[in-house]
Amino acid sequence: MRGAVIHGPRDVRFEERADPKIEKPTDAVIRISATCVCGSDLWPYRGANPIDQPTPIGHEYCGIVEEVGSAVRSVKPGQFVIGSFFASDNTCPHCRAGYQTSCLHRELVVGAQAPRLRVPLADGTLVATREVPPDELVPSLLTLSDVMGTGWFAARAANVRPGATVAVVGDGAVGLLGVLSAKQLGAERIIAMSRHSPRQKLASEFGATDIVTERGDEGVARVKELTKGVGADAVLECVGTQEAMQQAIPHGVQLEGQGLFFAHVRLHGGPAPVRSYLPELIDLAWNRKIDPGKVFDLVLPLSQVAEGYRAMDERRAIKALLRP
Amino acid sequence: MRGAVIHGPRDVRFEERADPKIEKPTDAVIRISATCVCGSDLWPYRGANPIDQPTPIGHEYCGIVEEVGSAVRSVKPGQFVIGSFFASDNTCPHCRAGYQTSCLHRELVVGAQAPRLRVPLADGTLVATREVPPDELVPSLLTLSDVMGTGWFAARAANVRPGATVAVVGDGAVGLLGVLSAKQLGAERIIAMSRHSPRQKLASEFGATDIVTERGDEGVARVKELTKGVGADAVLECVGTQEAMQQAIPHGVQLEGQGLFFAHVRLHGGPAPVRSYLPELIDLAWNRKIDPGKVFDLVLPLSQVAEGYRAMDERRAIKALLRP
Repeated sequence: MRGAVIHGPRDVRFEERADPKIEKPTDAVIRISATCVCGSDLWPYRGANPIDQPTPIGHEYCGIVEEVGSAVRSVKPGQFVIGSFFASDNTCPHCRAGYQTSCLHRELVVGAQAPRLRVPLADGTLVATREVPPDELVPSLLTLSDVMGTGWFAARAANVRPGATVAVVGDGAVGLLGVLSAKQLGAERIIAMSRHSPRQKLASEFGATDIVTERGDEGVARVKELTKGVGADAVLECVGTQEAMQQAIPHGVQLEGQGLFFAHVRLHGGPAPVRSYLPELIDLAWNRKIDPGKVFDLVLPLSQVAEGYRAMDERRAIKALLRP
Repeated sequence: MRGAVIHGPRDVRFEERADPKIEKPTDAVIRISATCVCGSDLWPYRGANPIDQPTPIGHEYCGIVEEVGSAVRSVKPGQFVIGSFFASDNTCPHCRAGYQTSCLHRELVVGAQAPRLRVPLADGTLVATREVPPDELVPSLLTLSDVMGTGWFAARAANVRPGATVAVVGDGAVGLLGVLSAKQLGAERIIAMSRHSPRQKLASEFGATDIVTERGDEGVARVKELTKGVGADAVLECVGTQEAMQQAIPHGVQLEGQGLFFAHVRLHGGPAPVRSYLPELIDLAWNRKIDPGKVFDLVLPLSQVAEGYRAMDERRAIKALLRP
């Protein structure tokens, strides 16, 4: 089969790759219905992560089960399934605590930008929909594999509650779906920090009540002003670029102890435990309560995967959906 | 009247002070039934906080309302009341969010180690019990003014849930009541980190299932071992000495960004919103579901307040209760 392979910075090729097959009895192989380019795929694409050798890429996926290993019990060929970017057994103590992305046996899913994909720990990782969805629902279901689950985690981690005032930092796909998540969780006021007109528009469609274009200290001052000096109850930090991460790593994140203490700040983050949210979010998407698929403003055949990366790198697209 | 006044490091005197009186229409004056020495009172006592001039001290209190200002509606003379160490209006957005210790109009209560005390913002700050409690209940009710509410906040902030495994760092009164709080919130396993025999005993009485005497990296290794490599679901950091705070302030708290992210850490703290917990905790103490008053292992007449400080400073006592 042909799939996406990253060879180096700004060098993603659609080329021949080995066909995935069952390697362990707990594996499944699925036929991809749709996949997409993640903001985190841009890290190696932009040279922020080293690439030692040509590597299959992509970790957001949904599709039809083709084959399962002998130990797989909960999904079967013909079912439409969605899974997290981290495979998890869904039974270890971390999984039971709702943090499947910290599963003691977690495995990163790789190579999803392809027609077919091997998914490890299929029983713990994949969730089947009640039937094969109509085509128009596929983009929304695809987002549940990572980007929507990540925005949802941001809102849950920030303890967004009915009536809350929420500020969302970052107007990428995660930030926009953070807005949608905050709305869904009952936030009354949602301040989206964005200076790109199409993203502002989508933020408003998703439930943003205010748009702040200022950044840094000016942005903080504007949020303070909008909230009569009180500030937001919850802030979703949805930037997470490699640059920001890199900046944070060598020095450690500087937090001034006493200031943090007296501000009653709550800080929580990490790789979103998408698996934990799948049943609830599938239900919401299936019943058209949420339409996260709107973040895809570019749809391409999988063979044009390189253009998907370019468009996102150059910020011509919020997020690119790829159809095998 | 005579009350406690701190003059300098290790110099607390029981001496003549001005009688408290109603200064604002929202004030109340109460007759103290019992007060005590807080771990944070030891900060200025040990010279870690500067003392510019002789200053009345103490902020944990309960007692009988003697007089209220003209605007006070919710408490009246003769009632037994408990209040937080921070007075709060209980109506501002931060109060409504459950963070009364971040009240826009908060005022520190000072001078509680005395027979009588002025409490600002009485309507928002004080909670009356249904009737005047029997004497044996007073110590437990007194703890709700700060130390028990602080342990409770630690457990709530750490998201202790039924079945959880909890580690409690620090075996002072807050740490011990953090153990009690974790137990009350349904924790299944509570690992108390303590190397003092009387404190270990009280930790066990309060619900600790394991005692770890190792500190630092060895302590972490022991907790990992006890939990089969999984670690605790929640860690209550109940040290908070001025030394530790001081150490944290000039450099900022160093947190390694990516490590924190992938560890799914949740960090939350601050001055405990004790006011928010008063109704629930009064109910629990009143019905003998909890007995936090056990942390008082030294009871003195108020006139011997200086000995209370000495005993706690020298770690001869966990916490000293003072009776006017």
